[in-house]
Amino acid sequence: MSRFLSDRFKALEAYVPGEQPKDMKYIKLNTNESPFPPSGLVYKRICEEIEKLELYPDPEVSGLKQKLADFYGVLPENIFISNGSDEILNFSFMAFCDKSRPVVFPDITYGFYKVFADLYALDYEEIPLSGDFTVNISDYTGIGKNIVIANPNAPTGLSISLSDIEKIVSSNPGNIVIIDEAYVDFGGESAVKLTKKYNNLLVVMTYSKSRSMAGARLGFGIGSAEIIKDLEKIKYSTNPYNINRLTIAAGEAALDESEYYSDNCKKIIENREYTANKLKKLGFEVLDSKANFLFARSDKIGGKELYLALKSKGILVRHFEKDRIREYNRITIGTKEQMDSFIKAVCGILGE
Amino acid sequence: MSRFLSDRFKALEAYVPGEQPKDMKYIKLNTNESPFPPSGLVYKRICEEIEKLELYPDPEVSGLKQKLADFYGVLPENIFISNGSDEILNFSFMAFCDKSRPVVFPDITYGFYKVFADLYALDYEEIPLSGDFTVNISDYTGIGKNIVIANPNAPTGLSISLSDIEKIVSSNPGNIVIIDEAYVDFGGESAVKLTKKYNNLLVVMTYSKSRSMAGARLGFGIGSAEIIKDLEKIKYSTNPYNINRLTIAAGEAALDESEYYSDNCKKIIENREYTANKLKKLGFEVLDSKANFLFARSDKIGGKELYLALKSKGILVRHFEKDRIREYNRITIGTKEQMDSFIKAVCGILGE
Repeated sequence: MSRFLSDRFKALEAYVPGEQPKDMKYIKLNTNESPFPPSGLVYKRICEEIEKLELYPDPEVSGLKQKLADFYGVLPENIFISNGSDEILNFSFMAFCDKSRPVVFPDITYGFYKVFADLYALDYEEIPLSGDFTVNISDYTGIGKNIVIANPNAPTGLSISLSDIEKIVSSNPGNIVIIDEAYVDFGGESAVKLTKKYNNLLVVMTYSKSRSMAGARLGFGIGSAEIIKDLEKIKYSTNPYNINRLTIAAGEAALDESEYYSDNCKKIIENREYTANKLKKLGFEVLDSKANFLFARSDKIGGKELYLALKSKGILVRHFEKDRIREYNRITIGTKEQMDSFIKAVCGILGE
Repeated sequence: MSRFLSDRFKALEAYVPGEQPKDMKYIKLNTNESPFPPSGLVYKRICEEIEKLELYPDPEVSGLKQKLADFYGVLPENIFISNGSDEILNFSFMAFCDKSRPVVFPDITYGFYKVFADLYALDYEEIPLSGDFTVNISDYTGIGKNIVIANPNAPTGLSISLSDIEKIVSSNPGNIVIIDEAYVDFGGESAVKLTKKYNNLLVVMTYSKSRSMAGARLGFGIGSAEIIKDLEKIKYSTNPYNINRLTIAAGEAALDESEYYSDNCKKIIENREYTANKLKKLGFEVLDSKANFLFARSDKIGGKELYLALKSKGILVRHFEKDRIREYNRITIGTKEQMDSFIKAVCGILGE
């Protein structure tokens, strides 16, 4: 730490991304990426766009906004485009939370919410999930604080019904409710349609999972025009050209081939169910995931032990040291072949 | 504005980027882009990198850091990579300034510094440039506040000598001095070598101007390892994967063909001197620019009037409404052909 760092960040603990070891080639089931490459049109449009790389991108990102608006049945002014969904989450914590506007989120969820809350020195509460890791809806109804919920949740994969989301949104009209739908395309119910009815709802999505573009950094949010305008104000006061030309081109192209991506989601759901069944047969407890990963534990082996044993066999999964979940591992769903390798490795480790 | 926006942003005025009208095709001399496309290897490496677009980029950006370190003769831990140089400027204002750590910068300079200062509700001062728009070095020596200076400055194009920069840096050891060298490759003297001697200096650079990549969004900073570590902490607490794969690949490739870019800089400098001479012959006062733009005024026509007349002829330049400079226009240097069109248009407007 330099002597110049503001006191308010001295105790801050930053987010720790999933490991990306470079010592050997791993089967990467640890950061919830898609095992499938982007579609052909994405390649083509990116290569065309390089021709204009010396020119600034459109800071309004109007073309992509229009396409997303058409895709989701909303208007362009209901869309905010961000450099990955982390950026819109960051902007939301910055814009809508402060010392007099506290925020709550589950104790077991995407680890970045707590980092944002610490970054902005917010008054926040981590509300414990139930014993079975489900969200207790009544904990959030009429709470009168800003709310952030991942649906489906990570790392559990469990999802909340649209009617339960509506109960939370409608009972907190004075507060923002952010539903982080990074994993919604793998079986969850999207709350986008509720944004037309409730102007305190912001739905956050990403191209990193179902659209095979974690490497392009593209996220977006859908909400009322007023909320979006506030986010634009933060963007134009921090980094107006936040999305580069190549990523904008890729984002537009993917929407023109949406069938390719929905087919991939179907394959991932099939592979998920296939893997879950195999794990259950091996005695694992496997949560009912609606995401592109499984969250599982076994009485036969500790969470960290399994993680390390898999790593030594060239397979990366994600293990969290947090108390309630240290016996679990989060396993990203890859191709059928990758999941067979994973299951085979687990069998070997358990001696089955 | 929504009812959810934090009070602290209610009066904030965001940055306004240069206009990008879509009604017709303009000769764009208004946002200081390069008129030259990126080099061949940039095309090739981006297209190769699309193959891995479904995977997250390296959040440490180690490959590009190493290459930049080699290029500038520093170590990778002295380099911070950002999503355009606006991002590292934003992170610097956030990390190093607060209510007890005020900041100063010139009254006529890059307009974003004031936006960052407002965004973080800082105690700041805009120190007036001299009557001839030069920086009065003694205004900054031993001032005991954080300092941000663009060198060469925008929109004036005027530069400060390395020895004067050193006076400012050495006389403020308790404060960060940020030298924004966005335009340094067009004739300025870089302060990078001073970063080895002074650990309170951060030099900020960008690929947007001399490296023909405004559309790729890539900036970086060079400074002491402690300062860089602080910036990394902010990055890992806001958006760890801030640079996408394609931009990283492009940034590395450009360093492998640096001669192409230095040749382009030479051409731009030639075109700048050519254009300055033409303007002077037409009676313009033209500041002695070391950047890829000129800042000029004429007694024969008002600044806004000239800007509008050029726009109606399909040529965009940048006009600022600010008091001290409203009679000037900032003219980006393009190709020889573009500058001839510009001069011809000016002649037509002046009836010469």
